[in-house]
Amino acid sequence: MTDKNKLATDLNAIREKSPLVHNITNYVVMNNTANALLSIGASPVMAHAIEEVTDMVNIASALVINMGTLSEKWVDAMIAAGSAANRKGIPVVFDPVGAGATPYRNMVADSIVKLCRPDIIRGNGSEIMALAKEHVKTKGVDSTASSNSAIEAAKRLASQTGAVVVISGPEDFITDGVTVLSVKNGSLLMPKVTGMGCTASAIVGAFAAVNPNYLEAATHAMAAMGVTGEIAARKSEGPGTMQLNFLDELHKLTAETLTEKAIIE
Amino acid sequence: MTDKNKLATDLNAIREKSPLVHNITNYVVMNNTANALLSIGASPVMAHAIEEVTDMVNIASALVINMGTLSEKWVDAMIAAGSAANRKGIPVVFDPVGAGATPYRNMVADSIVKLCRPDIIRGNGSEIMALAKEHVKTKGVDSTASSNSAIEAAKRLASQTGAVVVISGPEDFITDGVTVLSVKNGSLLMPKVTGMGCTASAIVGAFAAVNPNYLEAATHAMAAMGVTGEIAARKSEGPGTMQLNFLDELHKLTAETLTEKAIIE
Amino acid sequence: MTDKNKLATDLNAIREKSPLVHNITNYVVMNNTANALLSIGASPVMAHAIEEVTDMVNIASALVINMGTLSEKWVDAMIAAGSAANRKGIPVVFDPVGAGATPYRNMVADSIVKLCRPDIIRGNGSEIMALAKEHVKTKGVDSTASSNSAIEAAKRLASQTGAVVVISGPEDFITDGVTVLSVKNGSLLMPKVTGMGCTASAIVGAFAAVNPNYLEAATHAMAAMGVTGEIAARKSEGPGTMQLNFLDELHKLTAETLTEKAIIE
Repeated sequence: MTDKNKLATDLNAIREKSPLVHNITNYVVMNNTANALLSIGASPVMAHAIEEVTDMVNIASALVINMGTLSEKWVDAMIAAGSAANRKGIPVVFDPVGAGATPYRNMVADSIVKLCRPDIIRGNGSEIMALAKEHVKTKGVDSTASSNSAIEAAKRLASQTGAVVVISGPEDFITDGVTVLSVKNGSLLMPKVTGMGCTASAIVGAFAAVNPNYLEAATHAMAAMGVTGEIAARKSEGPGTMQLNFLDELHKLTAETLTEKAIIE
Repeated sequence: MTDKNKLATDLNAIREKSPLVHNITNYVVMNNTANALLSIGASPVMAHAIEEVTDMVNIASALVINMGTLSEKWVDAMIAAGSAANRKGIPVVFDPVGAGATPYRNMVADSIVKLCRPDIIRGNGSEIMALAKEHVKTKGVDSTASSNSAIEAAKRLASQTGAVVVISGPEDFITDGVTVLSVKNGSLLMPKVTGMGCTASAIVGAFAAVNPNYLEAATHAMAAMGVTGEIAARKSEGPGTMQLNFLDELHKLTAETLTEKAIIE
Repeated sequence: MTDKNKLATDLNAIREKSPLVHNITNYVVMNNTANALLSIGASPVMAHAIEEVTDMVNIASALVINMGTLSEKWVDAMIAAGSAANRKGIPVVFDPVGAGATPYRNMVADSIVKLCRPDIIRGNGSEIMALAKEHVKTKGVDSTASSNSAIEAAKRLASQTGAVVVISGPEDFITDGVTVLSVKNGSLLMPKVTGMGCTASAIVGAFAAVNPNYLEAATHAMAAMGVTGEIAARKSEGPGTMQLNFLDELHKLTAETLTEKAIIE
């Protein structure tokens, strides 16, 4: 397990530095993603025009690429932004939403992995298995994979790509290909809110912006998501209020609460 | 009126099968639509790239086409997806948002009706009248039509197209061109939340995915919307909290409550 | 200061006339913007296709152009719509989101100012300074400018363009180049909700639709935003619930409360 004090260090650093996180993400979750980044203390920006993505990367501290609602021009911009982020040396987080669902999605995901060299890849079990070329049938954007087969796929994907790979689910797994950490926080209401995974990827971006040890950054981000989800779920009557309480609690989350409640193994 | 037991059967079937509902919809409501589908127990996916819409249709159980924020490439994708859905034999739901407001919107709506052969068309009174070529001036996306003239237009549109036509409003009307059913549930707060109609169309998609009798499916969906809206409105202080309480209550809606409270005539 | 009775007149006029406000805005805030316009009593429409924007302008009472998530085709549509609005004589509100962040964004902002001749420009301090060609580095979409230097820039921008210029911040400033009014309402939770500024621009559109004195209209809109924000913040635990309570309170806002609580100087 990681040193829990570093959890607090990262959360405090986000609030002090308010890193600019550049998101090229899907239409469904843009609002939630921006709000989650604001709530945790980061500064979000959404920009997808090929004419400006490299300039936006140049003022950003992290880039999050999410392929939820793909189309050709957006993919071009993702790749241009990813390359610029590589050159600048800021972290690139990739969320391969729906990988495995269609051949086009698989092709785009492969291109992004190859051309944007993500530092962290976060998906559900099915998506990670699809990216690692395991036989799996993604059902739209929801996972159908078992944890164990997904973990093996994640380790292989991490070794092949050099990225830290995160599988989110009832228990989250984070691996650099050798070490496998797990985060045992969260709530069953979380997958009932659309885009919680996308929010997780954005929050991973905020942590990676302040901690260059991406295995730690990704783990801390997933712990922050899970702990916040637990607290918010207790106050929520369903997925609707959950969505808003989650933002409230992310805003109120203290380094103490995070450190105390995080279950990282 | 329809057999109320079938309401329960349909709702239970959505929760057991969690049908994948493919939405090509507008930017304004994507988040709400996805959340409403998750809340009722279906599995939403949003995808609009021409490169993948037919593949996505091939793993989906229903297709919902919503023309709220139109543009050329999206229309191409809608038509490709609709044709694929016709070939596969899954239900196509069409929401002609803002039909009547501009010539372009009318032209696109006509093309979709012709080329995607929707099984169910859901709109407000003005939109349905515009689609049926009645003289009506839609004010943006809000209805200005009276119920009676809209019902006549709906019957004619249903006869011409073979689709079940739904007019939503303070009282909803559902017709296959011969039978006209009505749902007398709902709340005045519902039209104060943007995209409630779009959410209704998505929920119609979920019901149509599990019940091939589309007159029943559409009626049951509108009843689920209306009953949920009534319950949520009682807990809400305004359109903001309504939006979230609606999702909570859709998630909590039991077959018993739905059967008990639905007013279908 | 302006005559406070006119505040009440404007708010009542929005509710009586329910003006159609045409928005060409960014993906992040479309839902909030539409909901805020519905909540205050206006009628929102979002449409961005070049094929229909001029027709939509022709049935609208105000046009709001927001460049948050730019791309080439959208810019073409913004300019076409803006020109149509000029010809028709309805107010054009421009929100230069992120001006100063990238050269492309600066170029587009300049084109819109030149070709759409906005009647009202609303931004944060950095954005207004960037538009007025002051040396300022916008951090993504968040402001880094001081109030005083921004006010000078706003006055110059107003004189150059003939537009009323609004700087929003802890204290809002509204100027036609000569008079400078300020609104001292609001809450620190407001900038923690993404798109509150974009919502302000949309609400400015609603007020401008009913009051051709744009200095008044903009000031009244900012007062309505600030007063609503204060009331909503008192009921909110964080940015999540704030987002929804804001809509509830905007819906419930009476002319009496607005008049009583507004601090305009």
